[in-house]
This record gives sequence, structure tokens and C-alpha cells, in this order.
Amino acid sequence: MSGRLTVIGLGPGNADQVTPEASRAVAEARFFFGYKPYLDRLDLRPDQTRVASDNREELSRAKDALAMAAQGHNVAVVSGGDPGVFAMAAAVCEAIEAGPAEWRAVDVSTLPGITAMLAVAARIGAPLGHDFCAISLSDNLKPWDLIELRLLAAAGAGFVIALYNPISKARPWQLGRAFECLTAILPGTTPVVFGRAAGRPDERIEIFLLADADSEKADMATCIIIGSPETRIIKRGERPALVYTPRSAAGPRK
Amino acid sequence: MSGRLTVIGLGPGNADQVTPEASRAVAEARFFFGYKPYLDRLDLRPDQTRVASDNREELSRAKDALAMAAQGHNVAVVSGGDPGVFAMAAAVCEAIEAGPAEWRAVDVSTLPGITAMLAVAARIGAPLGHDFCAISLSDNLKPWDLIELRLLAAAGAGFVIALYNPISKARPWQLGRAFECLTAILPGTTPVVFGRAAGRPDERIEIFLLADADSEKADMATCIIIGSPETRIIKRGERPALVYTPRSAAGPRK
Repeated sequence: MSGRLTVIGLGPGNADQVTPEASRAVAEARFFFGYKPYLDRLDLRPDQTRVASDNREELSRAKDALAMAAQGHNVAVVSGGDPGVFAMAAAVCEAIEAGPAEWRAVDVSTLPGITAMLAVAARIGAPLGHDFCAISLSDNLKPWDLIELRLLAAAGAGFVIALYNPISKARPWQLGRAFECLTAILPGTTPVVFGRAAGRPDERIEIFLLADADSEKADMATCIIIGSPETRIIKRGERPALVYTPRSAAGPRK
Repeated sequence: MSGRLTVIGLGPGNADQVTPEASRAVAEARFFFGYKPYLDRLDLRPDQTRVASDNREELSRAKDALAMAAQGHNVAVVSGGDPGVFAMAAAVCEAIEAGPAEWRAVDVSTLPGITAMLAVAARIGAPLGHDFCAISLSDNLKPWDLIELRLLAAAGAGFVIALYNPISKARPWQLGRAFECLTAILPGTTPVVFGRAAGRPDERIEIFLLADADSEKADMATCIIIGSPETRIIKRGERPALVYTPRSAAGPRK
């Protein structure tokens, strides 16, 4: 008998940004697999069971959840933000592809959520208003050379860049190095937004210029948005400044 | 007296994917500016007023909404998807920057929504599971040369690519040309997802290979996700196939 596995996006961490379909899926599931801080956001009933794991254990968490679902249970895997963006949906797919045949019979669905870059962008204006990309700065699962190549390609082609997983205790220098790379291509006046915990009580959203961006002001909960040469800052006196990227763009630099 | 302007993201079109904060903002606003199909999603009270406009009139819509808010009203600008992604938030910022000083005093906020690429990705697996970019294929506001440059830069650097605004009556050839460009760089076996109206009753999500992708199968409501060379398809017998991009990647091609 094959059960059900729902990969649920809980959004940035504000209950007002959890979709009704995600809330309903939480109410219906019986077993919850996830990184502990995400599980801590749920208000579960006594008949619902939490299985917490660490944030470097995505693949084994996905396997455990699939094994439980394949036994006929209604299982949830929870992610912060959107599960399809540097989160659990890909780990579940990897586990299905490599796993036993019965895992392909599990009724798997994914419920999208507000991912960090959208939450941060909304709080500061519209920095993602034109073409943009999202890059995970973690070199745990890809070589650093590839990250530099992507940063340079994206900045050179005029994309706004959202950086996920910018820094951690085990990865202290990567964000500073990314800013150095980008400084070779982008003007020092390019706006850079550090968006920490958007929508949560400890939210901190700050605007810097690329030349002054200090990687030590970021932590694991920060999403960083680096503008394109078109990105602008609107000062508004007593109101907070807005950062946005216009919808229109001129031609390629010749 | 300065009022309030809230730019509200309504998500892909399924009421179950509208965040509680967006629903509350709709209940509180008095004047609603937007493209008619988005306004049609709202169930407004008799004391709430709709001001519909066409989908090529973003800037004048933003100006009208700001002028109304500056008079002290509680005004909403509604967007499908997320207002910060090829939608109204940037148009509102453009209008503020170019407009009269009193528009900077308006209390402007943006409420994020589930953007199309996240909704489509969730329905098919995890195609955005690794680094990705979003490109509007509309050459109304930028030259086509720049779009080609970005497609080639993104594909060459291994980004998954989500295409917004792929095709319209006035822009019939651009999507076919984009596929031609990408074929020069990506394998013909690269998975391509056509995601139409994700989450709505008329949803249609289809998987093609790049060599067979037919631009005539897309319309204005389609978001297209083009995989990277790492993107994979998992066949599951009676269950629908999954498309995903693994979290890990090898180094740059030398």
C-alpha cells in the first residue's frame, strides 16, 4: 500500500504568508520530517509526529520520509520558503530516482511557498523587477569555481542576483569573495540588499552599495540581492528608501 | 493627507494559494487598480471600487493608483503571481521616482505572492532545484539582442531558465527564436516544461525535450522552464513523470 508525501513550503516564517493549501496539508498529515527550526513553526496535535533532523541531512530525511509514505502513511516534509528553491523538493526527487520501485508509486505533491528573495524584495521595493537569477552560495554540493563562473556570467549579462545560503560557520569567506568577483564587473554604486528574516519579528533589511557591502553583516538567515547596473535607490525622506530595477533596459553593452 | 498603497500578489490564480496577508489587504482596501482578469478574481463588497485597465498600461495604472492614495485613500494595486516579478511593484516604484514629491510620502507596501515559476515547478517536481534565472521574453521594454545575450549567458553557465511572457499576438516569433538560440548550447534532450495556468481548473503542464519544444503550444498564460544539462526526468509508470534539477553540480566545463 502506498501512502502520500507532501512537500510543504512554509514561506519565510510569518504565519500570514503561509498559503491556505499549505496550512490544510499540515492539518492533514500525520508524520512531519524537517529541519528542527521549520518543524518548530508548526502547532501540531498530539496525534501528529515530528521527526527532526539537521540541515545538512536533506537526502537521508527525504529517504526516511519516502519509506514512511511507502508504508501507507500520510507524510509531510516541511521546508522554509519554497520547497523547490534550494530546499527539500529536489532532495525528495533525488531519493525517488535512486530508491526502490515502490517509492515511485507514492503520491508525491509539492505545495509552493513564498521564497526568501520574494519576501525580501517585497519589503524593499522591487529589486527583482527585471531579469534576475538565484544562486546558492554554498560550495558543499558544487565547486566554488562554478559559483564564480555563474556570478560573472549573471552580472555580465545584466541579471539582478539573489544569493541564498550566503554564509555559515563552515563557509566564512565565500560571500566576501563573491563581492570581490562582482566588483570587477559591476559599478561600486550598485545597490545591494541584505534581507534577514523578512516578515519575522527579528527582520532586518539593509541597503548598501557594492563597494561598501560587508559580508560579516550576513548570516545564514540572510538573502542577499545584488542589483544590476540599472537598479536604483529612491530616497523618500522620513519613509524608508526603496530599491527597484526598472522594467525596461537598454541594449547590450558593445 | 497621504494614504496608503498596497501592491498585492494574488498568486497563480488558485484561492488556496493566496496568502492570508494578501486576503486581509484585499478586505481592507477601498480602491482596486489592476488588469481586469486579476480584478475578476476578487470578491469585492459594494463599498469597494474597481478600476480596471489593460495589460500594457502598467505605468499609467501605477500613477492613477498613487494619485488616489496621495489623496488619502486606501488603495490596492493587484498583480497575479508575485508583484515583484515582471509585475506591478516595479511600475509603482518607477512612478514614485518620476512623480510629484507627495507620492514619496504615501505609505507603500508590497505583499509577495507565489510567482508562476514556483507554482509550475511544484506541479512537476523540482526543476528549479539548483541555480536558476527568470527572464521576461517580452521585447516591448528591452531590445531582443539583450534577451538573446541573456539566454546564451544563462544556458552557458548552467542556469535553469524560467521564461515569463513567452508569447503573445504581437510577439509571435520570439519563443521559437529563443529555443533556436538555446539549441546551439544545450543538448536536444534538455527537459522543457510548459506550465499553463498552474493551480487553476484549466491547468496544463507538459514536458518536452528541447529538440521537440514547439513554441505554438505556449500562450500568454504559460511559464516555460528550460532545464540545465543536469536536469532529469523520472518516469514513474502510472504516475506522472517528475522533472528535477539535482542540488549538486560538477565543475565548469573546461
